[in-house]
Amino acid sequence: MASNASSQGLAGVVAGETALSTVGKEGAGLTYRGYSIEDLAEHATFEEVAYLLIEGDLPDREQLDRMRVRLQGQRGLPDALRSSLELIPANAHPMDVLRTGCSLLGCLEPEDSFEQQTAITERLLAAFPSMLAYWYHYSRNGRRIETVTDEPGIAGHFLHLLHGRAPSEEHVRAMDVSLILYAEHEFNASTFVARITASTLSDIYSAITAAIGTLRGPLHGGANEAAMALIERFETPEQAEQGILDALSRKDKIMGFGHRVYRERDPRSDIVQGWAKRLGAQCGDDRLYAVSERIHAVMKREKNLFPNLDFYSASAYHFLGVPTELFTPLFVFSRTAGWAAHVMEQRAHNRLIRPSADYTGPQPRIFIPLDAR
Amino acid sequence: MASNASSQGLAGVVAGETALSTVGKEGAGLTYRGYSIEDLAEHATFEEVAYLLIEGDLPDREQLDRMRVRLQGQRGLPDALRSSLELIPANAHPMDVLRTGCSLLGCLEPEDSFEQQTAITERLLAAFPSMLAYWYHYSRNGRRIETVTDEPGIAGHFLHLLHGRAPSEEHVRAMDVSLILYAEHEFNASTFVARITASTLSDIYSAITAAIGTLRGPLHGGANEAAMALIERFETPEQAEQGILDALSRKDKIMGFGHRVYRERDPRSDIVQGWAKRLGAQCGDDRLYAVSERIHAVMKREKNLFPNLDFYSASAYHFLGVPTELFTPLFVFSRTAGWAAHVMEQRAHNRLIRPSADYTGPQPRIFIPLDAR
Repeated sequence: MASNASSQGLAGVVAGETALSTVGKEGAGLTYRGYSIEDLAEHATFEEVAYLLIEGDLPDREQLDRMRVRLQGQRGLPDALRSSLELIPANAHPMDVLRTGCSLLGCLEPEDSFEQQTAITERLLAAFPSMLAYWYHYSRNGRRIETVTDEPGIAGHFLHLLHGRAPSEEHVRAMDVSLILYAEHEFNASTFVARITASTLSDIYSAITAAIGTLRGPLHGGANEAAMALIERFETPEQAEQGILDALSRKDKIMGFGHRVYRERDPRSDIVQGWAKRLGAQCGDDRLYAVSERIHAVMKREKNLFPNLDFYSASAYHFLGVPTELFTPLFVFSRTAGWAAHVMEQRAHNRLIRPSADYTGPQPRIFIPLDAR
Repeated sequence: MASNASSQGLAGVVAGETALSTVGKEGAGLTYRGYSIEDLAEHATFEEVAYLLIEGDLPDREQLDRMRVRLQGQRGLPDALRSSLELIPANAHPMDVLRTGCSLLGCLEPEDSFEQQTAITERLLAAFPSMLAYWYHYSRNGRRIETVTDEPGIAGHFLHLLHGRAPSEEHVRAMDVSLILYAEHEFNASTFVARITASTLSDIYSAITAAIGTLRGPLHGGANEAAMALIERFETPEQAEQGILDALSRKDKIMGFGHRVYRERDPRSDIVQGWAKRLGAQCGDDRLYAVSERIHAVMKREKNLFPNLDFYSASAYHFLGVPTELFTPLFVFSRTAGWAAHVMEQRAHNRLIRPSADYTGPQPRIFIPLDAR
């Protein structure tokens, strides 16, 4: 057990309990508080899913309307935050910008009591798209955009701010489904970090800031950007076939395939693949989706690996006009709901999370004074 | 095993390997890369210890001198960071300020390659005291201080910036010893968070930012501030005796006693207790140290609990003129060395850290459309 946990990154080690989601349980795929991801992606909106994760049950019409009003009312950013975002250069990593913006908001509107945790979660859900879009337009064009829109949901709000105009209903729905798919995923690395941070009884901004920094890595949230970079390398499906075979023979890691927990398939992938296909056809794409499908087929044939959520999300986001460097921040907009729900769950039954380590260092050594070294 | 790990915050679960320190191994107490904490606190400086943790061996004179020159040369802060610190109000939590400052520095001077990890570690070691002091003086007095001093070490640099004058040799040495004691402590919560963040191949600023947010909690780094608040409640040892007995009868948690890993004693406590006694005597204290000793005696007698590092650190810092709200940030100045060394160790043998969870939520549920709820 010990060396197993040690060498394998806690793979399969139960580190706690959760009532939030099942990931790959007995072929059951993914559920959020008992609802299948297929049903949620087909019938719900992201705001309903965020409510479900945070409150434990789906909202009724009145609860949902009230939540939407609260979220719409919190899209503005404090002056100090806007001024700070203006100081961050255009070549900064957008995840670093969100990490910093979240941390700074924690200085300006601190969590003085855990009773504020739900209100702060909603504040972050409402403010993250505004933060990112404000910095993005200011750093690139020097434009100080108005971050308040009358879009009913977070998906439309962000697309509106990004493109400077109201998005189509279909684009809003595609983005909304993507936010639903990314909202929660049990004890992944960033969520586990949020829980450990919360387990010291630190504030919720610290937990979400830590989670953003963790999600940033290419072995986690950064994978959708890496998948896009891969897909864009190829002009045709034939080039893709050859390129992937070459990469596999060099034992390169192909991002967007396989999963630590899922063994046979990622239930989110079919859903986002459907959207990528539809969005591509609509905008006259005759390359990216076809290349994606071929990479998928080669990976299945050669390695028996399945695409995970990140793989088809890349082309779907591209068809929505989202620049590649903003893919992982979209993941933040959504996963904030899951992170916050885990922070609340950790706080409700808290014990400090503090494991042990196997020592592999030198035996006791005699100290030698500086001038005798 | 599963329910054990789950209910007990991974207590005793081996989550990886480290060559950096032993904590409570077979009564051996605490060693950093094989050197006992007693030897290091008696004979070394903090910069030697930071070098030891980062590089693996103690530096010789030339290596140490070169490192000191590098650190001294990096005490200045970029304009954008100073301007952002000026936007953070005086009532912000100083740990939130360091968390934000670290994150922002990661936007301004990003880690483009892991080859920069040692240089960035030194940059953070040099810049954290400057960040904190700059914000502290500006937010309270509107003064834009010069953050470069000619103090040879980090301990003296911070005391100089805080008090606006060169500190005494003895105060520098007391602070230096404290930084040595706090520098590294195996898989504590903040360090484990830094390693998980690093395990996604995210950047080192993300890992240190996450660790700061985790250290902030009162069950972790925040304990020294809580210990100070406790000690200051009592005017005399007799009041302390009664107050602690009352608190114990109410089953209040007394901060600064006991430890997740140490069973019999915290080897760091005797060292810092000696310094607290000496500094108190020097500055004519006839209350805080005596109160501290009495609380210690009552906790030993009533609960057989020993003080951990945080307990006597509180009065030692107080005697050095450090405001209580800056105690945990001092922990950051020091532990940055340990965090960074763990990030480097994680990267050298990386596997994504991603545990599992036991599911305790609802069974599969049928989705009910919004208007039917």
